[in-house]
Amino acid sequence: MPCSIITLTTDFGVGSPYVAQMKGVILSINTDVSLVDITHEIAPQDVRSAAQVLDEACRWFPEGTIHVAVVDPGVGTERPLVCASLGCQHFIAPDNGLLSLVLRGADPIRIIRLADRRYWRKEVSSTFHGRDILAPVAAYLSRGVSPDAFGPRHDQLVSLDFSCPVRTSHSITGKITSIDSFGNLISNIDSSMLPGDALRASVRVRLGSHEVQGLVSTYGNGTPGSLVALIGSAGRLEIAVVGGDAAQQLHARVGDEVLVFLPC
Amino acid sequence: MPCSIITLTTDFGVGSPYVAQMKGVILSINTDVSLVDITHEIAPQDVRSAAQVLDEACRWFPEGTIHVAVVDPGVGTERPLVCASLGCQHFIAPDNGLLSLVLRGADPIRIIRLADRRYWRKEVSSTFHGRDILAPVAAYLSRGVSPDAFGPRHDQLVSLDFSCPVRTSHSITGKITSIDSFGNLISNIDSSMLPGDALRASVRVRLGSHEVQGLVSTYGNGTPGSLVALIGSAGRLEIAVVGGDAAQQLHARVGDEVLVFLPC
Amino acid sequence: MPCSIITLTTDFGVGSPYVAQMKGVILSINTDVSLVDITHEIAPQDVRSAAQVLDEACRWFPEGTIHVAVVDPGVGTERPLVCASLGCQHFIAPDNGLLSLVLRGADPIRIIRLADRRYWRKEVSSTFHGRDILAPVAAYLSRGVSPDAFGPRHDQLVSLDFSCPVRTSHSITGKITSIDSFGNLISNIDSSMLPGDALRASVRVRLGSHEVQGLVSTYGNGTPGSLVALIGSAGRLEIAVVGGDAAQQLHARVGDEVLVFLPC
Repeated sequence: MPCSIITLTTDFGVGSPYVAQMKGVILSINTDVSLVDITHEIAPQDVRSAAQVLDEACRWFPEGTIHVAVVDPGVGTERPLVCASLGCQHFIAPDNGLLSLVLRGADPIRIIRLADRRYWRKEVSSTFHGRDILAPVAAYLSRGVSPDAFGPRHDQLVSLDFSCPVRTSHSITGKITSIDSFGNLISNIDSSMLPGDALRASVRVRLGSHEVQGLVSTYGNGTPGSLVALIGSAGRLEIAVVGGDAAQQLHARVGDEVLVFLPC
Repeated sequence: MPCSIITLTTDFGVGSPYVAQMKGVILSINTDVSLVDITHEIAPQDVRSAAQVLDEACRWFPEGTIHVAVVDPGVGTERPLVCASLGCQHFIAPDNGLLSLVLRGADPIRIIRLADRRYWRKEVSSTFHGRDILAPVAAYLSRGVSPDAFGPRHDQLVSLDFSCPVRTSHSITGKITSIDSFGNLISNIDSSMLPGDALRASVRVRLGSHEVQGLVSTYGNGTPGSLVALIGSAGRLEIAVVGGDAAQQLHARVGDEVLVFLPC
Repeated sequence: MPCSIITLTTDFGVGSPYVAQMKGVILSINTDVSLVDITHEIAPQDVRSAAQVLDEACRWFPEGTIHVAVVDPGVGTERPLVCASLGCQHFIAPDNGLLSLVLRGADPIRIIRLADRRYWRKEVSSTFHGRDILAPVAAYLSRGVSPDAFGPRHDQLVSLDFSCPVRTSHSITGKITSIDSFGNLISNIDSSMLPGDALRASVRVRLGSHEVQGLVSTYGNGTPGSLVALIGSAGRLEIAVVGGDAAQQLHARVGDEVLVFLPC
C-alpha cells in the first residue's frame, strides 16, 4: 500500500534551498505526499548526531513512513546508498552509520543497495545524491514501488559504536549525548537502568563538580534556578535548571561524563 | 465537519526534533491534515510573546483551523491543558496565559479541560505534554471528535495583563511589543487610536531621544537611512528605518516607551 | 488544470510569523495545496540573492508549480506586482528584478500585472503585499483561475545585471556568487565553459592567493583539510575544503574573483 509521509533529516542548515530542491524532486514524482522536516540543523557531517536524532524521531511516526536522511560526507565516493526496511518503516540513507541506532531497536526485514538507475534522476551529480538518488527513490517507494526494485540485497549496514553506560552495583557511568534548545542535558542513561519510583529520591546524580540529590518528575518541580535531575521525554536521565539553561550555567558539553550513585 | 489544518506555535527552536515528534504523533492519528508552523522561535518559556504571535497569526487562517501552542514552563505540574473554541477556530494549549490575547477579540463558545485519557498517548511523559496530550487531542479534533469528548467544561482561562496604551487629549503613551526580523519596532498603539489620514502628517512620534514628524504610508516613503513612523501590517504603529534596521540603529528593545503627540 | 504546489521564497527570516500569515491566507482560499518553503533566509531586501536562489530551486519542481517570491523593499510604492508564466511554471512577485534569472532560461508565455482587486484580500495593507495580494492571487491561480483574470498584460520585467564570467583563450574570470551552509564557495562559472573530463586535471583555479591544481569529482576526493575545486550540484565551479569550511578557512566572500587557467 502506498505511503504518504516522507521525512527529511539533513545537515544542510535551516533555510537551505538544498532542502527545497529535494522536496521539488519528490513532489515531481508524487504530488500526494506529506513532507515533514525532522531537522536540518545537524552539525555539518555529524553522522553520529544525525543517527541519534533520527532514532528518537522515527518512533513517533506511523507505520509506512519513509525517512530520508542525508548527512553524507562521502557523497560521490564508493559508500553505498541503501533502503532499509526496519519494523514497519523505511529508511533511505547513505550506509555510513546513520542508521546505527534505528537498527538496534527494530526488526530488519530487508536492506537494499540502491543500484537501479531507473529510479534515479536522469542526470546524477557527484555532489548531491540526496537530491539525485535518495529523493526520487523515496518518492517511487511512496508510490508503491517495491524496495526490491531498487537494487540487490545489501548484507550489513555500517554500525557506529555508541558506547552504553557502565553499571556497577553502586553506580552508573554514562554521558551527555545531546543538549536541546532549552539547554537541558540529555544523557544516554535509560530510565530502565534506574531504580523504581520509590527509590528515586535516594539517587544522586553528578556532573563535573555539581551534584543533585534525587530525581524530580518534571522541570517545574524545584525552585527557579536550581539544578534538577529527571527522566526526560525520550525516557532518559536529564539534568536541567528550573526555568533556566543548564548547558550554559554548568558549561556542559556533549560527551561530558554523568555519574549516578544508586541507593544501597 | 472535520478540519484539515493544524498549526504549531512553540518555543522549541527552529530545527528542534521535538516539533517533528509532535507532527509524527498527529500524522499517526490523522494522515489527511495540513501542518503549518507558525513559529518555533518564541524565546524559551516566553508565554507573553507567544500569546502575541498566536493572536496575530490566527486571524489569517480559515474557520475550523486548530491551533496548538506549546510554551509550557509548568509542564507536568498542576496547570490544566485546555481546548478553547473561540470564534470558529480551536486553540489547544496549557492554561497559562497563552490564550490571553486570542480570547480578547473572539467569542468564546466553550472551553474544555483536557481530561479524558482515551485521546492522549498511552504513555504520557511528565515533561512533554505537547507531544503526549496536545498533539493527539488536536489530531482527534481534526478527525471530527467533538471537543466535549475531551473533558469537562473549564470555567475561565488565565489572562495575562497586557497593558493598553494610555491616551490623553494631547498624547498616547504606548510601548514596543515586538521587533520583526527586519528590525521594525512594532508598538501596541492601534491605528484606531490615531487621527484620520488627513491629520497624520501632524502627528509626532517619540522613542527615547528620537522623534519623527508625521506618518508615512509605507517603508519606502523616505530617504534611505531615515527614521519613519507608519501603520504596519498588523494595523499598529511601527517605527522603521528606510532600507535599514531600526532596532539596531536606535538600540531599541521590546518594552521601550513610545510617545505619540497628537495634533491639537 | 489546477495546480497543487505553491512555494515561498522570502527575506522574512526563519521562524517569522509573517510566513505563517501568508500560508493562512493561501489555505483560506485553497485548502488542497502543498506549501513548500524554498527559503526565508534571504538577507533583508537582497533581491539579487533571492533571484539566484529562486532560479536554482524552481527547476526541481514539477510543471504547474506556483512560486511566490517576496523580497520587496518597494512594498506599497509604485513598483508593479506580476504573475509571470515562464515555461510551465508560474512566478508571482514584485517586478523588481527578482525574476531576472528565472526569465533567462525560460520561455515567457505571458506576464500579467496584478490589478484586479477581486483576487486580493479585501483590506490591503501598504506594508505587506505578500500577504494581502501575492498570497491570495497564488491561491486563486492554484484553484484554476486563469492568469489573464488578474490584470492586463505587462510588457517587460525589470532585469538586473548579473555579469557573466569573462573568457579568453587561456583563462576564465568569474566570481563567487553564493556560499552554502557548508562554506562551499559557488561561482558563476558554468561547467559548460570548462574543458571536458579528459582535460580537467590540467585546469588551475585561483582564488585570492590560493591556487588549486585540477578538478576533483566530489568533496571527498582529497585529503581532509585540503582545498579542492569541483563542479557542484548546480553545475557550476565550486571551491571547497575537504571535510571543512572553505569560506571560513579562506576568508572568502560573495563577490570575490575566481580565476581559471585553462590548459593550452
